[in-house]
Amino acid sequence: MTTTETTPERLARLRAAIDGRLDLILANDHETPPRILEAVRYAVLAPGKRLRPVLLLAAGEAAGGRLDDLMSPACAVEMIHAFSLVHDDLPALDNDDLRRGRPTLHVNFDEATAILAGDALLSLAFETLSRFPEGDAFAARKIEAIGVVSAAVGLRGMIAGQVLDLEFEGKAASREDLERIHRLKTGCLITAACAAGAILAGAGEEARKAMERYGRALGLAFQITDDILDVEGTAVEIGKSPGKDAKQAKATFPSVWGLDASRRMAAERVREAVAAVEAFGSKGALLADIARSIESRRS
Amino acid sequence: MTTTETTPERLARLRAAIDGRLDLILANDHETPPRILEAVRYAVLAPGKRLRPVLLLAAGEAAGGRLDDLMSPACAVEMIHAFSLVHDDLPALDNDDLRRGRPTLHVNFDEATAILAGDALLSLAFETLSRFPEGDAFAARKIEAIGVVSAAVGLRGMIAGQVLDLEFEGKAASREDLERIHRLKTGCLITAACAAGAILAGAGEEARKAMERYGRALGLAFQITDDILDVEGTAVEIGKSPGKDAKQAKATFPSVWGLDASRRMAAERVREAVAAVEAFGSKGALLADIARSIESRRS
Repeated sequence: MTTTETTPERLARLRAAIDGRLDLILANDHETPPRILEAVRYAVLAPGKRLRPVLLLAAGEAAGGRLDDLMSPACAVEMIHAFSLVHDDLPALDNDDLRRGRPTLHVNFDEATAILAGDALLSLAFETLSRFPEGDAFAARKIEAIGVVSAAVGLRGMIAGQVLDLEFEGKAASREDLERIHRLKTGCLITAACAAGAILAGAGEEARKAMERYGRALGLAFQITDDILDVEGTAVEIGKSPGKDAKQAKATFPSVWGLDASRRMAAERVREAVAAVEAFGSKGALLADIARSIESRRS
Repeated sequence: MTTTETTPERLARLRAAIDGRLDLILANDHETPPRILEAVRYAVLAPGKRLRPVLLLAAGEAAGGRLDDLMSPACAVEMIHAFSLVHDDLPALDNDDLRRGRPTLHVNFDEATAILAGDALLSLAFETLSRFPEGDAFAARKIEAIGVVSAAVGLRGMIAGQVLDLEFEGKAASREDLERIHRLKTGCLITAACAAGAILAGAGEEARKAMERYGRALGLAFQITDDILDVEGTAVEIGKSPGKDAKQAKATFPSVWGLDASRRMAAERVREAVAAVEAFGSKGALLADIARSIESRRS
């Protein structure tokens, strides 16, 4: 990072580096059947914010890690995010046709390919986490990172959140239900990305806990603004069908609390996130800026 | 192992221990939504041969490992096998109603639950592999085992095999195509189970290579006899709909080579597998017995 680089410039540079590494990891190996490789690339290389990998990189760098060591693990977290989108969009689940401004994977390919591409992304993520950073010196850190990330995906994480989200369709959800669903469905992986960055950087217990607090607050702020955008945004801005939550009778923050209270809740979480990384000083500046940008997001 | 224990007794004891550990890993944590936990248990605890976990245990013990250190990783490999069955049975893929003598998961629950239960099993498998055996002393071995197992699942493994299997439906497959599909679809995970056992036991390069040779030969023998059983077996014996391959116009060993030649090919692979573990002497006896039992399997 040059001293004159602004946060948007830095984010753009990190996103470009992530996309470049993803492209490399998913290069044609002349062994993978072409159609599934194409599907996996379609899912992962779609334009996106790359929030989770950026968080892993930013948390890892704030905790003293090297960008080069963190880049492939960051890509692994993005693969897990892409896997979850592909499976959530399936007809048997959210049945969505539009994602990141393009037809969803099962629409553009077919359902079998979408199921298998998601599966492949999940296993490739763990393969990537097991391989990088290379060297036995990183083995214990990698094991811990894999433990944290896999727990965030599973039966007490993202998948539990998706199950609850489906179960609550058309039912009244309390504030506690709603926060639990979002903590699991979105928050767990965001928190795990921050924690994994700190772990791979060799951070101590205190720094790691701070990153987890940051991730939890940021994840909730992100989800609240996501719900607000679903009410206020246009398809062009958010890249998926707006008003979909209401159509599916999904419980959302605006539907339970109203728009104004939801905006205040998001602002409060952003303040929490910024406070969590204060102790990192200038090294935590990027994380703080990312948190602040959540409040004003339009997509 | 007591000296008077026969191979069938020993296999029964190992299977009971695997089932007991799976039951423990999948115990109610009062946090996981009950329905998805029930679905995951339905998929994993269904009666089965537990071939892959038994192979991990047998290979690990032959290479000098402790059963207690190997039990949870063995369960992880069974979870991956169960994940693959659940997703392969889905309507968009093989569309099968019967598995291990019972309704498939999407029939007994619903499609969304089956997709998510498979996803949960895959991530739980990697979580389990990251946690056990416990201790930093195992970190490097666990990283290597996770690398081998995840590679066996992904775009150059099981999932690639499933993609090719679907692509070849109704098409003529050459012997090379057929062997490639089966090597990927079944062979990779069986080979990885054997390799992971050896790796976790701290085996040297030579022992590990021998286990991989054993796994590759055994996997192919297993798949050939699977195809033969699909022609000859009854639903009661094999626990799934017989004649299904022919109905789906799938290329199989009997359809390409005829039954007699298929039987000879299976016998040849069994001999290869037995030869691969000869160097382990009496410690490799269980592996050799498992290979021999493939030829006479009725289920």
